Amino acid sequence: MAPKYAPSLRSRLAPILLILQTGFFIIAALCFEYKQFIRLDREAFIDFYPEFQDVNVMLILGFGFLFTFPVRYGFSGYGFNLLVAVIATQWALILNGINSWYNTKIRIDLKSIINAELCAMSALISIGAVLGKTNQVQLILIALLEVTGFILNQWLLLTLLKVRPLNSIMLLFVFGSLFGLMLTWILHRKTQEKRFEKEKFDNKSGLFSMLGTLFLWMFWPSFNSILVDENHKLRAVCNTYLALAVSAVTAAALAVLSSPRGKLNPIQMQSSILSGGVTVSVSMSVVEHPWEAMALGFTAAVISAVGFRYLKSLMLIAYECHDTCAVLSTYGLPGLLGWLVQLILQIKNSDDHTVVLRFVVFHMCALFITISVSLLTGILTAFLLKWKFWRTPQNNKCFDDQAFWEVSSNTSKPKKK
Amino acid sequence: MAPKYAPSLRSRLAPILLILQTGFFIIAALCFEYKQFIRLDREAFIDFYPEFQDVNVMLILGFGFLFTFPVRYGFSGYGFNLLVAVIATQWALILNGINSWYNTKIRIDLKSIINAELCAMSALISIGAVLGKTNQVQLILIALLEVTGFILNQWLLLTLLKVRPLNSIMLLFVFGSLFGLMLTWILHRKTQEKRFEKEKFDNKSGLFSMLGTLFLWMFWPSFNSILVDENHKLRAVCNTYLALAVSAVTAAALAVLSSPRGKLNPIQMQSSILSGGVTVSVSMSVVEHPWEAMALGFTAAVISAVGFRYLKSLMLIAYECHDTCAVLSTYGLPGLLGWLVQLILQIKNSDDHTVVLRFVVFHMCALFITISVSLLTGILTAFLLKWKFWRTPQNNKCFDDQAFWEVSSNTSKPKKK
Amino acid sequence: MAPKYAPSLRSRLAPILLILQTGFFIIAALCFEYKQFIRLDREAFIDFYPEFQDVNVMLILGFGFLFTFPVRYGFSGYGFNLLVAVIATQWALILNGINSWYNTKIRIDLKSIINAELCAMSALISIGAVLGKTNQVQLILIALLEVTGFILNQWLLLTLLKVRPLNSIMLLFVFGSLFGLMLTWILHRKTQEKRFEKEKFDNKSGLFSMLGTLFLWMFWPSFNSILVDENHKLRAVCNTYLALAVSAVTAAALAVLSSPRGKLNPIQMQSSILSGGVTVSVSMSVVEHPWEAMALGFTAAVISAVGFRYLKSLMLIAYECHDTCAVLSTYGLPGLLGWLVQLILQIKNSDDHTVVLRFVVFHMCALFITISVSLLTGILTAFLLKWKFWRTPQNNKCFDDQAFWEVSSNTSKPKKK
Repeated sequence: MAPKYAPSLRSRLAPILLILQTGFFIIAALCFEYKQFIRLDREAFIDFYPEFQDVNVMLILGFGFLFTFPVRYGFSGYGFNLLVAVIATQWALILNGINSWYNTKIRIDLKSIINAELCAMSALISIGAVLGKTNQVQLILIALLEVTGFILNQWLLLTLLKVRPLNSIMLLFVFGSLFGLMLTWILHRKTQEKRFEKEKFDNKSGLFSMLGTLFLWMFWPSFNSILVDENHKLRAVCNTYLALAVSAVTAAALAVLSSPRGKLNPIQMQSSILSGGVTVSVSMSVVEHPWEAMALGFTAAVISAVGFRYLKSLMLIAYECHDTCAVLSTYGLPGLLGWLVQLILQIKNSDDHTVVLRFVVFHMCALFITISVSLLTGILTAFLLKWKFWRTPQNNKCFDDQAFWEVSSNTSKPKKK
Repeated sequence: MAPKYAPSLRSRLAPILLILQTGFFIIAALCFEYKQFIRLDREAFIDFYPEFQDVNVMLILGFGFLFTFPVRYGFSGYGFNLLVAVIATQWALILNGINSWYNTKIRIDLKSIINAELCAMSALISIGAVLGKTNQVQLILIALLEVTGFILNQWLLLTLLKVRPLNSIMLLFVFGSLFGLMLTWILHRKTQEKRFEKEKFDNKSGLFSMLGTLFLWMFWPSFNSILVDENHKLRAVCNTYLALAVSAVTAAALAVLSSPRGKLNPIQMQSSILSGGVTVSVSMSVVEHPWEAMALGFTAAVISAVGFRYLKSLMLIAYECHDTCAVLSTYGLPGLLGWLVQLILQIKNSDDHTVVLRFVVFHMCALFITISVSLLTGILTAFLLKWKFWRTPQNNKCFDDQAFWEVSSNTSKPKKK
Repeated sequence: MAPKYAPSLRSRLAPILLILQTGFFIIAALCFEYKQFIRLDREAFIDFYPEFQDVNVMLILGFGFLFTFPVRYGFSGYGFNLLVAVIATQWALILNGINSWYNTKIRIDLKSIINAELCAMSALISIGAVLGKTNQVQLILIALLEVTGFILNQWLLLTLLKVRPLNSIMLLFVFGSLFGLMLTWILHRKTQEKRFEKEKFDNKSGLFSMLGTLFLWMFWPSFNSILVDENHKLRAVCNTYLALAVSAVTAAALAVLSSPRGKLNPIQMQSSILSGGVTVSVSMSVVEHPWEAMALGFTAAVISAVGFRYLKSLMLIAYECHDTCAVLSTYGLPGLLGWLVQLILQIKNSDDHTVVLRFVVFHMCALFITISVSLLTGILTAFLLKWKFWRTPQNNKCFDDQAFWEVSSNTSKPKKK
C-alpha cells in the first residue's frame, strides 16, 4: 500500500532554492552591471517597455493560469510556474552573458531580460508535459538543464550555421515540446492507470485556465514583435493577429467536427487557438502577405486540433507517453509547421538554385541540431529525475495540491461530501 | 415533453465556420495588403500599440468574462464571445475596406484593425441581450448581420450628413443595444417562465464576471482616446477617468438606496460603473472641463442604476423582452444621454443661431438614422433566427454549458448533490 | 444573542456617498482645469501612458482581487476596494492641489492622477489590516482620513526637511501599514475568538487572490519607475525586476523551511513575493547595482516570511491585534528595511563626515515624523470608527458577503449542504 502522506520536501527544496539563489547572487555581484545611460536609450525604453510588460504577463500569468485547469491542482499550477519562471530567467540571464565574461561584465537591460524570459519559456512549455506528476525540486532541475540545453543549442546554431538569434530563439517551441515529451515518456509509471484519478477539470478551474490562455492569445502579437527590428514590427503584429483570429475560428470548427455529439471541448479549444501564433513565431521572417498568415493560422489549427483529439490518446496507449497539457499538438507540431513554411516560402521567393539548395541544407541542419540537442538533454534530464532522492509524488498524490500546499483537506476537496 | 438532449450542432456550426473562414481567406488573398513601411510609421506604431492592446483586452477578456456570470454558462460566456469577436472583426475589416475595392487593395494596419474591433464591439453588446438563449450558429449570424448594418449606418451618416467617423463609430452603443433588444423581443418564448431555471450567479461566477468588468472599466480611457487625434488624447483620457470614478461612487450609492435592506447588488454594480465611460465615449468631442465629465458620470450612473432596477423587470413583464445583461441600461440609455449632452453643449457653445439650428437638425437626423437602421436590421435578423433550421436550445438547456461543451454532468452541476 | 440580520446601511452609506460625491463635484467645478495642450505633451503622454495603465491595474485589479481570498467575502473584497480607491483618488487629487488654490486652479493630467493614486494606495494598504471586520462606511472614513494624514505628512516632510516628493511618497508603505495596525488594534473585539468563523480561503478564492497578487508582482516595475525621471527609469525597472525575482525564490524556500511538513502556504507566498518590490520602492534612489537589488529582494523576503509565520500570531495573542492581510510583514517591515538600506547606502557612498551626519539626522527625522503622523491619525480614525452610529458588523457577520450584498444564502454558502 502506498504511504498515506506525500513525502516532505523540506530537506530537498529549501536547500536547493537557497543554494541556487546564493549562487545566482554571487555571479550577479561579480558579473552583472547596468549600462551607462545614454540619451538614445530613452527612445529604446519607450519602444520596448509596453511589449516587455506584455511578454512578462504571458510568462507569469499566461502560463501560470494555463496550468490551473486540474481541479485540485490550482495552487501548484501557478505557483510552480512562477518558481520555474524566475529561476529559469535568472539562469538564462547568466548563461546568455557567458560570451562577455572574459572581457567585460554582463549588461542587464530590458533586451537581455526579454531574451532570458524567452529561454525560460522553453522550460515552461516542457513543464506542461509533466505537470501534475512531478514535484517542485524536479521542476527546478528541468528548468536549469533545459535552459542550459536551449542556450547551448542557440550557440551551436550560431557558431555552426550562422542562424540569426531571432530565428534560433523561436525554435523554443520545438525544443521545449520535444524535451517535455522525452521527460514524460521516460518518467512514465508502469503501475499507473490510463488516467490519473484527480486529472480532471471543473467549470471553475477551466475558466481560470482559459483566463491564462486568453492572456497568451491576446499578447502573442507583442511576443512576436518584441525582438523584430522596428521596420518589421507592424507586419509581425498584424500577421500574428490575423493568424490567431483564423486559428480561433478553425479550432472551434474542428472541435465540433471531431466530437460525436457536436460539442466543443474547452481544453482542446485552449490548445488549438494558440497554434496560429506559434507557427507565425517560427516563420515570422518570411511571411509577407496577410493571406499567408491566415493560411498558416488555418493549417496550424487543423494540425493542432487533430493532434489533440487523436494523437494524444494514441501516444498514451501506444507509446505510454502521458502529455498533460498536450504540448506536442499545442507547440510542437505548429512549431514544426512554421519551420516547414519558412523552408517553402524561402524556396518560392528565391530564383537562384544554388542559394536555394544551400538554404535547404542549412535549414534542415538547424532543425536536426535542435531536435538532437532537445532529445538528448531531455533524456539526460529524465534519467536524472528518476533518482529516488527527489521524492516523486505517489500516483494518488499526483494532481493534488495537498501534497505540496498547506490547504485543509475539506477546502481542497470541495466535492467529497 | 422536451427532448432530453440538446440538438447537435455538428452539421450546422462546423460547415458555417469553415465556409465563412474560407470566404474570408479568399477575400483576404485578393484584397488585403500591408502598407509599405515608411519611417514615420515607427512613431505611429509606438503611439498606438499600448492602446491597441488595451482595446484588444477589453474586447476579448473584458466582454468574454463579463458574460461568464451565469453559474453554469462560463465556458459559453467567454467561448462564444471569442468566436463572435474574431468573426466580426474579420468581417468588419473586409466591409470597412469596401470603398477602396475598385481602385486599390485594403490596407491592414493597427488603425484598420482597431476600427474593425470597434464595429465588432457593437455585435458583442447585442449579444449580451440574448446571452444564454441562443446557440453559436445564431450568434455568428447576429455578428455578420449586425456588423453589416452598423457599417451601412456609418456609411449613411457619412454620405448623407457628413458625420465624422469618430462620432459615428461611437454610436455603436446605441446601435448595439437597440439591435439586441429587437432580437430578444422577437425571439421571446411564449412558454417560458419569467426567469430561466439556470439563470443565476454564484459567488465564484460573479467574481469572474467582475474581472471582465474591471478590465473594461480600467481600459475605457484607452478605448476613448485611441481614435482621437493626439492633441486631444490627454483630455479624452482624463475625462473618461473622472467620469468612471464618479460613476462607480454613484452606482454604489444608488444600489444601496434602491435596495430594501440597503445591500449592494453585484450585477447592478457591474452594469452601472461602466455607464460614465459610455456617455463620455459618445459625447467626447464636446466635453471640455473636468466638471462636465464628472456630471456626465453622475447622471449616467443614475440613469443606468434606475434602469437596471426598474426598467429591466418592467420590460420583461410588460413587453416580454428578456434582456440578459441589461444592455439597455448599461449601454443604450447612457449612449443616448451622451448624444443629448453633445447636442446641449454644442448649442451652449455656439453663438450663431443659424449654425445651431442646422446642427440640431443634423444631430437629430443622425440619431434617427442610427435608430432606424438598428431596429430594422435587428428585426430582420431576429426573424431569420426564428427559423427552426438553426436548432435554438430548448428552455431547459438555456444557460447551460452542457448543451454545447464536453463537460461531464457532475462537473457542470457541482451543487446537485 | 446577536441579531440574526446584519444592520442595514441604507441610511448611512447612501447619504455619505452622495454628499461626498457632490462635494467633490463642487470643488472640481470651482478648481479643476485641464492644462492647455502644448506640443511637448505628446511625448510626455506616450512616455507615461503605458505605465499609468499598469499602475491603474495594480490599484483596481491588483488590490481588489488580493482582497478576495476569504471564501465568502469575494464581492466585498473587490467591491469595497474599488469604492475606496475611487473616493481616495478624488480626495487626493483635491488635497494635492491645495497649494495652487489661492493663485491658480488645480491642473488635472496623468501625473496628478498618478500622484493621487499613490496616495490612495496608502489607504488600500491600511484596509488590508481591517478587511472583513468593517463595513463600507467605515472604510470610506478610513480612506478620507488616511489620505488627509498622508498628504499632511508629505507636506511636513517637504516643509521641514526638504525631502523630495518621490522619496516621501514611497513612505506610503510604512505609513499605510502602521495606520492599519492602529486601526485593527483599537477596533479589536474583546468577545471575539482567536479567528473569525468565516475567515478562511478555499482553492478557488485563493486563486482569485493570487491573480490580484500576480498583477501587483508583474506591474511593480511600472509602479517604481513611473515617477522616476527618464534617465533612471531603466535602472528602476531592472532593479525592481531582479528584486522581485529573488523575493519569489526566497519566499518559497522560507515557506518550506518554516512549515513542519515542508509545504508551501499560498497566503504566505502571496505576502512574501511582493516584499522585494516594496523595499526597492522605498530605497530606489540609492540602489545602483544589480546585486544590491537582489540582496534587497532576499532580505525583504526573509523578513516578510518570518514576520508572516511568527509575528502575525504573536501580535494576535500578545497584543490582540488581528491583521487580516498581514500588512505589517507584507508592506511595513520591507518598507522599513528600504528606509534602512537607503540610510546605509547613502553613508557608504559619501566621504564627507559632516554631510553624512546631517543626512542621518534628516533621514531619521523623516521616519520619525512619518511614524508619528501615521500612528496619531490612525488612533484618531480608530476612535472615530468605534462610534456605534457606523453599525459595525457583528462577529458572525464578519467575512460574509451576505451582510452587504444581495446574494441568496445558498449561493454564498455553497458548501453548507
